[in-house]
Amino acid sequence: MTETGPRPTLEAVAERAGVSRATVSRVVNGAHGVRDALAERVRRAVEELGYVPNHAARSLVTRRHQAVAVVAAEPETRVFADPYFAQQLRGISKELTAHDNQLVLLLTEGREDHARVGRYLAGGHVDGALVFSLHLHDPLPGLVRSAGVPTVFGGRPDWDDGRDDVVYVDSDNRGGARSAVHHLAGLGRTRIAHITGPLDQTSAADRLAGFRDVRPGAGPGLVARGDFTSGGGERAMRELLDRCPGLDAVFAANDLTAAGALRVLRERGRRVPDDVAVVGFDDMLPVAEQTDPPLTTVRQDIEGMGRLMARLLLRGLDRRAADATDFDAARTPTAAPPGVVLPTTLVHRSTA
Amino acid sequence: MTETGPRPTLEAVAERAGVSRATVSRVVNGAHGVRDALAERVRRAVEELGYVPNHAARSLVTRRHQAVAVVAAEPETRVFADPYFAQQLRGISKELTAHDNQLVLLLTEGREDHARVGRYLAGGHVDGALVFSLHLHDPLPGLVRSAGVPTVFGGRPDWDDGRDDVVYVDSDNRGGARSAVHHLAGLGRTRIAHITGPLDQTSAADRLAGFRDVRPGAGPGLVARGDFTSGGGERAMRELLDRCPGLDAVFAANDLTAAGALRVLRERGRRVPDDVAVVGFDDMLPVAEQTDPPLTTVRQDIEGMGRLMARLLLRGLDRRAADATDFDAARTPTAAPPGVVLPTTLVHRSTA
Repeated sequence: MTETGPRPTLEAVAERAGVSRATVSRVVNGAHGVRDALAERVRRAVEELGYVPNHAARSLVTRRHQAVAVVAAEPETRVFADPYFAQQLRGISKELTAHDNQLVLLLTEGREDHARVGRYLAGGHVDGALVFSLHLHDPLPGLVRSAGVPTVFGGRPDWDDGRDDVVYVDSDNRGGARSAVHHLAGLGRTRIAHITGPLDQTSAADRLAGFRDVRPGAGPGLVARGDFTSGGGERAMRELLDRCPGLDAVFAANDLTAAGALRVLRERGRRVPDDVAVVGFDDMLPVAEQTDPPLTTVRQDIEGMGRLMARLLLRGLDRRAADATDFDAARTPTAAPPGVVLPTTLVHRSTA
Repeated sequence: MTETGPRPTLEAVAERAGVSRATVSRVVNGAHGVRDALAERVRRAVEELGYVPNHAARSLVTRRHQAVAVVAAEPETRVFADPYFAQQLRGISKELTAHDNQLVLLLTEGREDHARVGRYLAGGHVDGALVFSLHLHDPLPGLVRSAGVPTVFGGRPDWDDGRDDVVYVDSDNRGGARSAVHHLAGLGRTRIAHITGPLDQTSAADRLAGFRDVRPGAGPGLVARGDFTSGGGERAMRELLDRCPGLDAVFAANDLTAAGALRVLRERGRRVPDDVAVVGFDDMLPVAEQTDPPLTTVRQDIEGMGRLMARLLLRGLDRRAADATDFDAARTPTAAPPGVVLPTTLVHRSTA
């Protein structure tokens, strides 16, 4: 086996390279202004002795960088265009900053870049990760898992292998959808339609399930597929009116979808809420207040979800550090339930 | 001095800790499922032997993580609210992704968090940094400099110590401003006002300088201070109309400012461009097309600036790796000029 002595010091590197301590320090910390030949000698000595700079050694032992990665399974353009991400990030940023942890947002152009994100996570640059907006068959959770960093997911991951060791924060999407449709039914509406979100996301699938809980008999003509954007809401609303001109209510999977639906209803001469009542989901501001008329919607605490994701992760990391134990300890029921589901509330404005 | 042998191996750690190679590997890579007592023994052996995991050792020698930090000297909320950042990031993201580099966006709540950003940069987690939106007396450039990472700045930094070793990308703010004011003067306007940006940023200061180049005699009554937001544009426009009701043209420091000014002009019954001609700066879409009437403005290639910042940084890093030389080599005039200033063009729409 290899002979090993005690940990090599900065002094040892300086002596081996025949330079001053200050020069070693400058090279190791990537500072400028060291002559190439000198820098090369220092680097060779570092390699030969297996010297580890203090900051790297420290983080190897405590394994804390005071930095947390945030990964959204969406391209950079979408992350910046969708107010949902901005709001969730606001909560995450506040919580991480309050605990002096650096928010490290890893952006991508698309799914093909997820392997690189996995490599960065595995590279020991962050203490943990917050991952959200997962889609079905997304390779990202697997990459995060093999990177071996403690992770909290935003939204219930859609995994069918019976795993129960995943920490996530979600809203009660199904219960919230039920309350929206109950409200519409309570107004005496009988032809209630639903515009879904992208059904490869659990949030959209759960809202559709809530709609079906209350209206098990709704025919396929009363359900149209959207994509959580206002353009998708417009397209779906046109489809629904063509198929079922007599519909008298719409539950839209989110507020942007509802905003698009409202534009088409006005364009087709339907009065809201007199002819058609509309309920959205999110209570995304200012969108929900600025629709014409202002939107009745199911409120979820998006910023609060972000804060809670960050809090659960930091708590798990603290526990891990304190007990020198595994992150799994933070995932036992006594520490934090694997899934935390936050309640929703119906906000009454003018569309229903 | 300290006795030092050759670089300790994974096997040596396994033998010292009395565990298998696989267990050491799992602990060192932060994987789950290793019993606490075992993990603790491994960590102690790692520390005693000064073992460096391969990936850390590799990056210590090659000093490449294939990751670049992006830092905006603005709070997280502003980064997500201002379309300027989104557009610059789009350029950066495309360029970094094309070269398989991870974009690491470091977000903060405010200036008090900049020391933490400096620590992360100094921690050896990225190869370089792109830093933008600097303000006068901002501690960030100093922190970035002492972190010792190669950096390209977005916008000309406002340093008065004669430094010429700073790589930055900027637009021709002064020349663009001159072309806007020349255009207004060419329309026969004689009482041309200017709404500035925040004058602690060089972009705003340079646009004011361009205005003064063309209208050296403009009195203080014709210049009002804004802040690059539409709210600031509204306030400044009211001030200007109160002070100088006969003004017949406005050069606004950016498009958001112009949008605010146009709202106030309409509210006060001024016809645009008949009574008052307006020119903005940025050609920020969709803002500039959606004002009423559509905005004549000075176009700068914001996304292109982002791409170029990333390209200059990566080129410097490649050169550094190839020559095993310092990043400064990439900053000599033959490699890349310290400051690259991109041209602007006047885009004619309906306000002037």
